[in-house]
Amino acid sequence: MSRIAVLGIGHGKFGRRSDATVQELAFEAFRDALQDAGLERKDLDATVIGSVPEYHKQRSLAGVVQEYLNLNPIPTWLTEVACASGSAAVRTAWMGIKSGLHDVVAVIGCQKMTELATAEILALMGRVGEVQWESIFGTTFPGYYALFAQAHMHAFGTTRQQLAQVAVKNHYYGARNPNALFQKEITVEKALESEPVASPLNVYDCCANADGAACVILASEKRAKSAARKKPLVWLDGVGCATASMSVLRRPNLHSLPSASDAAQQAYRMAEVAPRDIQVAEVHDCFSIAEIMAYEDLGFCEKGQGGRYIEDRKSWIGGGGVPVNVDGGLKAKGHPIGATGVSMACEIVKQLRGDSGARQVPNARVGLTHNVGGIGQYTFVHVYKRD
Amino acid sequence: MSRIAVLGIGHGKFGRRSDATVQELAFEAFRDALQDAGLERKDLDATVIGSVPEYHKQRSLAGVVQEYLNLNPIPTWLTEVACASGSAAVRTAWMGIKSGLHDVVAVIGCQKMTELATAEILALMGRVGEVQWESIFGTTFPGYYALFAQAHMHAFGTTRQQLAQVAVKNHYYGARNPNALFQKEITVEKALESEPVASPLNVYDCCANADGAACVILASEKRAKSAARKKPLVWLDGVGCATASMSVLRRPNLHSLPSASDAAQQAYRMAEVAPRDIQVAEVHDCFSIAEIMAYEDLGFCEKGQGGRYIEDRKSWIGGGGVPVNVDGGLKAKGHPIGATGVSMACEIVKQLRGDSGARQVPNARVGLTHNVGGIGQYTFVHVYKRD
Repeated sequence: MSRIAVLGIGHGKFGRRSDATVQELAFEAFRDALQDAGLERKDLDATVIGSVPEYHKQRSLAGVVQEYLNLNPIPTWLTEVACASGSAAVRTAWMGIKSGLHDVVAVIGCQKMTELATAEILALMGRVGEVQWESIFGTTFPGYYALFAQAHMHAFGTTRQQLAQVAVKNHYYGARNPNALFQKEITVEKALESEPVASPLNVYDCCANADGAACVILASEKRAKSAARKKPLVWLDGVGCATASMSVLRRPNLHSLPSASDAAQQAYRMAEVAPRDIQVAEVHDCFSIAEIMAYEDLGFCEKGQGGRYIEDRKSWIGGGGVPVNVDGGLKAKGHPIGATGVSMACEIVKQLRGDSGARQVPNARVGLTHNVGGIGQYTFVHVYKRD
Repeated sequence: MSRIAVLGIGHGKFGRRSDATVQELAFEAFRDALQDAGLERKDLDATVIGSVPEYHKQRSLAGVVQEYLNLNPIPTWLTEVACASGSAAVRTAWMGIKSGLHDVVAVIGCQKMTELATAEILALMGRVGEVQWESIFGTTFPGYYALFAQAHMHAFGTTRQQLAQVAVKNHYYGARNPNALFQKEITVEKALESEPVASPLNVYDCCANADGAACVILASEKRAKSAARKKPLVWLDGVGCATASMSVLRRPNLHSLPSASDAAQQAYRMAEVAPRDIQVAEVHDCFSIAEIMAYEDLGFCEKGQGGRYIEDRKSWIGGGGVPVNVDGGLKAKGHPIGATGVSMACEIVKQLRGDSGARQVPNARVGLTHNVGGIGQYTFVHVYKRD
């Protein structure tokens, strides 16, 4: 079985980027990834764009990005699966190379979340649920995750303090990531005292919308091994994807995401690893409860022990468990929805290369990304290994 | 090299489908494709949705379709490249199987074009160009294709009559397709006398928005050969995709689509065929001029001879050239943008199986689809062969 390598990564600043259009954001990340890979435009065979189109005034975004990056006439396509759009882009790029159709593919996740008026964004976000039977009754994003949090607290005794501890960790690491939206530490008290959003979630339990872009360049094993490299090779050895009902009424329970555990099993099996082999993970902490559920769904701890896992600081670097979201996560880094999955890939590659500086996990050789779409109707889990 | 087969096709009625939600449209096509393939839900490994999300009130469409079709927990993803979204879905499904990740993948193109208010649709359509430099000056879809028509007339002497003859042919065949939006024949005079839209294009030079869905089920060679079949196998042997600038200001000329000729070359090369081998084609006639340009870009005739090609009835069945859009094309069948590419695939498979009834091309064994996104910033060309 031939493998797929990551040759280059690029990551722009996340935040309110009124200085740049979405194609300019894409360019920043792409330029850095190309340079990091030691490649030129002519070396690329295709691009994939991860983005959620309806947040932009521009239609047909892949075409605009392709033109702005001066990449015509090579193929492109855009993938959309809500907040997991970036990981779907990585997955289809992996397939494109593995199928033999392409050798080198640039995956660009890019999103402006601040282009439309706030009311328009809220209307879009409010329609993330199933419109015929759920969102019509007023379900919103924080509302769904508040349900999950209530269910988790009820079933396992998870506490508000534990939720707040997730935010504290992610802000701590965000303060060490120059690309993060929020680069300041917070305390448990501050999180607990922040404004309520949807009980039990407060402002500090919620990630923030942000503009941003990230890029990874994938290549076939043959191409990767023949390329001149300054960096160690990182391989994308396991790709998992699973789905679950959008309607929460049809879920077996509200305190886990079945799509996440299914996707993780696929990725572990393909990469021939177990949860205990994972040394660093990027998980989808759109809300603090989501990170706690992810610990459990990914098998980092037993079901129901997620609150304890953060309380015991297991997911901090050096805590004895799997360090999670040591770039700040969606919480502190910001969540440009189409870019997030690719941003996760960038951080894991950086960690496996040993390039993460103040937030480096020592000697990490196996890493994982966990990217959830919507309220768990999709999850993509990818396992990366360093040579 | 292993091949990818089409095991099943399904196609619903195109038109103003106020009787069905987008997921119900998807279901109609999927159910028929599953039955046609002789498969059950449990035989599927993944689905791909081709759709343009912003035309729907529902966000995160792949999840809704997946749930409505009762297909969780298998993977899904949505592809968007404007009006070529359906073909991008076919292409990524092809890659998914060829990569070894999946064996059987259902590709569902689905779109409601009549869900939003007409003013909202016009606003979306009006933003199909590059918003920073072009659509802000009022470019619209018909406006772009009117430019292409003017350029073609100027360079090659193409006439209004020839444009009208495209519409006459496609309405003739649409009248023989029960799934078509318009099932009535028209005359050249009627087309010429219809209301002007953007000179030289009249109403009958323009395709119509429609709701609709289509589905194809692709499978690996091994799986296809082991399946119990009532129908001859059709193979997707060539996939081509190319891009060109969205800004028409950067195009080398306005009377051809460079992405179309590039994509065709790729697909011909991969399938080891030449234009003269194509016996039936579905091309992207969003406007009458687009079909004339397609004859040339695909190599069915010399550059500049497209007007003559339709005038000489070469693209009619039995006309001595390649029969084109014998299901009515976008013009008469209607154009549910995300579904169109998959609908084209259904018709070609039907033709190669000899199942097209009143519009059957005799003994067709090699067919082609040509699906253009936007104003030619993407084209996907696929070549199908019958065993």
